[in-house]
Amino acid sequence: MAEGSWIRRMFEDGVVLKQRYGAENVFDLSLGNPVMEPPAEFARELKRLVEHPLPGMHRYMENAGYTETRAAVAAQLSLETGIKLTMNDIVMTCGAAGALNVVLKTILNQGDEVILFAPYFVEYRNYIDNHGGVARVLPTDEQFMPKLDALETAIGTETKAVIINSPNNPTGAVYSKGLIHKLGELLHKKEAQYGTEIFLISDEPYRKIVYDGLKYPSPLHHHPRSVIVTSHSKDLALPGERIGYLAVHPECSQREELVNGLIFCNRTLGYVNAPALMQHVVRHLQQVTVSVTEYQQKRDFLYDHLVGLGYSVVKPRGAFYMFPRSPLEDDVAFVRELQRWKVLTVPGRGFGAPGYFRISYCVDDGTLEGSLAGFRKAAQKFNLS
Amino acid sequence: MAEGSWIRRMFEDGVVLKQRYGAENVFDLSLGNPVMEPPAEFARELKRLVEHPLPGMHRYMENAGYTETRAAVAAQLSLETGIKLTMNDIVMTCGAAGALNVVLKTILNQGDEVILFAPYFVEYRNYIDNHGGVARVLPTDEQFMPKLDALETAIGTETKAVIINSPNNPTGAVYSKGLIHKLGELLHKKEAQYGTEIFLISDEPYRKIVYDGLKYPSPLHHHPRSVIVTSHSKDLALPGERIGYLAVHPECSQREELVNGLIFCNRTLGYVNAPALMQHVVRHLQQVTVSVTEYQQKRDFLYDHLVGLGYSVVKPRGAFYMFPRSPLEDDVAFVRELQRWKVLTVPGRGFGAPGYFRISYCVDDGTLEGSLAGFRKAAQKFNLS
Repeated sequence: MAEGSWIRRMFEDGVVLKQRYGAENVFDLSLGNPVMEPPAEFARELKRLVEHPLPGMHRYMENAGYTETRAAVAAQLSLETGIKLTMNDIVMTCGAAGALNVVLKTILNQGDEVILFAPYFVEYRNYIDNHGGVARVLPTDEQFMPKLDALETAIGTETKAVIINSPNNPTGAVYSKGLIHKLGELLHKKEAQYGTEIFLISDEPYRKIVYDGLKYPSPLHHHPRSVIVTSHSKDLALPGERIGYLAVHPECSQREELVNGLIFCNRTLGYVNAPALMQHVVRHLQQVTVSVTEYQQKRDFLYDHLVGLGYSVVKPRGAFYMFPRSPLEDDVAFVRELQRWKVLTVPGRGFGAPGYFRISYCVDDGTLEGSLAGFRKAAQKFNLS
Repeated sequence: MAEGSWIRRMFEDGVVLKQRYGAENVFDLSLGNPVMEPPAEFARELKRLVEHPLPGMHRYMENAGYTETRAAVAAQLSLETGIKLTMNDIVMTCGAAGALNVVLKTILNQGDEVILFAPYFVEYRNYIDNHGGVARVLPTDEQFMPKLDALETAIGTETKAVIINSPNNPTGAVYSKGLIHKLGELLHKKEAQYGTEIFLISDEPYRKIVYDGLKYPSPLHHHPRSVIVTSHSKDLALPGERIGYLAVHPECSQREELVNGLIFCNRTLGYVNAPALMQHVVRHLQQVTVSVTEYQQKRDFLYDHLVGLGYSVVKPRGAFYMFPRSPLEDDVAFVRELQRWKVLTVPGRGFGAPGYFRISYCVDDGTLEGSLAGFRKAAQKFNLS
């Protein structure tokens, strides 16, 4: 528990700073908690349901979720990927965090290894640990892309899964189709070499938030033992509602046994089922997304200013994070420095990548604009330009 | 996984039977899934919130839940028990199942023992197993009350917790104040004897559903290391929404460390937080409960008829279950027999108590009335009267 989460720690520091100086004087870029309200379609659909409630709409349903919702998710994924999924491939979950725990509980035996690429979403380590797994952390290159040569060396007989997260938290990196293809080939090769099965777990809550006209390349095309875990926390701006799902590749080996295991673990880990009302609502919103243009404008604004101030930043292609190099080797010291100017960010070591810091720009424009003064002061102090 | 859940298995058998014979011809008493709609106050409050949304009401909040909701829960518990709780004693959770997993994850080390009394809610075993604990099952007497002499013998240095569930699923038994007092005394004695600390985990989702003018005796009065886990699944008829909470006795030793651990595990087990919208709604409904009178009428109707037919039943004092003795030694065979008459129940072995069967009577009166023919046929076949 001592390690805690740097994200939550910064969040709590922020609460204190806001109490002291007033919320309007603190520029909080620490949490992936969109200030954007859910899309109008969400409000409309929720209102419709509340005004015309379905009988029993707050009751238990099958642990996998409502068949209509699972069918709607399957239809949308089929449309996006061109791969035919059905409701039998879908389990509705309490967010992507719930989905990840369910998958790991289902597939891991004590001591199995799960490969991550740094920087990574820090909770992965807790989730792996919850279910007796061992996290194996591999490096990315200077563009934050997984190093496949390192992966080739690292995969062994104990490797049960590889987790990827594109668009990435904390870097905003979006993996190319070519990269995922090579990753899939490598997994096949290693599976054949060791006679094992390796799951590719694709954590993709930011799938619909990609910029510059990029098209999201689904890992489903590149590995049959792929499991998608995701949520509507970001694409519908509903992080507090804990509504997400997992999807199993329809051609996954022992698919039925796997899905039954996932449903069982969804039940016995105490989730029981994804929240009922939200399942009803998102059923009709599979094609709806928050304004990606707005996020892209925020990215452009912040990226241009930071680069102009001398910060070294890999331009994000998706999600709503930026992961600049820390001007100080000690990223915690730099984040504390920014706090002096009432700008809240998260040190890179919170993501297994010291020497960087994370900016979350899913905030209103005033907060972004207000943060520039602090970034400028820090840049001057450390002679960035 | 092979053991599965008898409740869910019967539920799924029921789905098949309903498809074959029409839902109106199947009398499903298998699942604790209230057909009662939530109280009118719930619909009103939900509508109010949806029509006048709070800014950011679907966002992340602190992992423990909204302070206003926690304060409302604490106020209600203080009122009910006369013991002063504050929001710092409360963590909002994804139902009681989420709460139980959070508590067990927080307090258990590998191999720690958790004591249960049979018959018990079958998922307890999975929850204990999830977090490296070992379930130790003790008997109850002919009124389904825990046998304290057995408890005295069973408690050892490895005993970390005792789970009680009153009003009880599957028996409807309500423990008396005297019994809980003696249980508390016994825990103190054993703690002193072994120099250990033993948690009393009180799973009380049916706390507000008690009959015959009984007053629910809170375990908070009888053991300082009490943790309440509960939900609004039954008292507000919201089982699909996964909204509940846990409450720590304000005088629990190392209370702050414990609560921090609970909040940490609520986050890292992937629940993150209890669903946001439902947290907003239940804040104003702490004094609201479904109609207990209606449940009591259902109990009276069914109990009187079953006893009249010759079934041996301990009269339930709360919850909405009945646990008659099976006329056949093989409770699964008897439940299959009832299925022939389109009456769905759950064999007692699904609750660690073979030789009984569970009836869930949170159904409409038509279903209860319709089930009588099947109970009568079975009674005649096995010469009950």
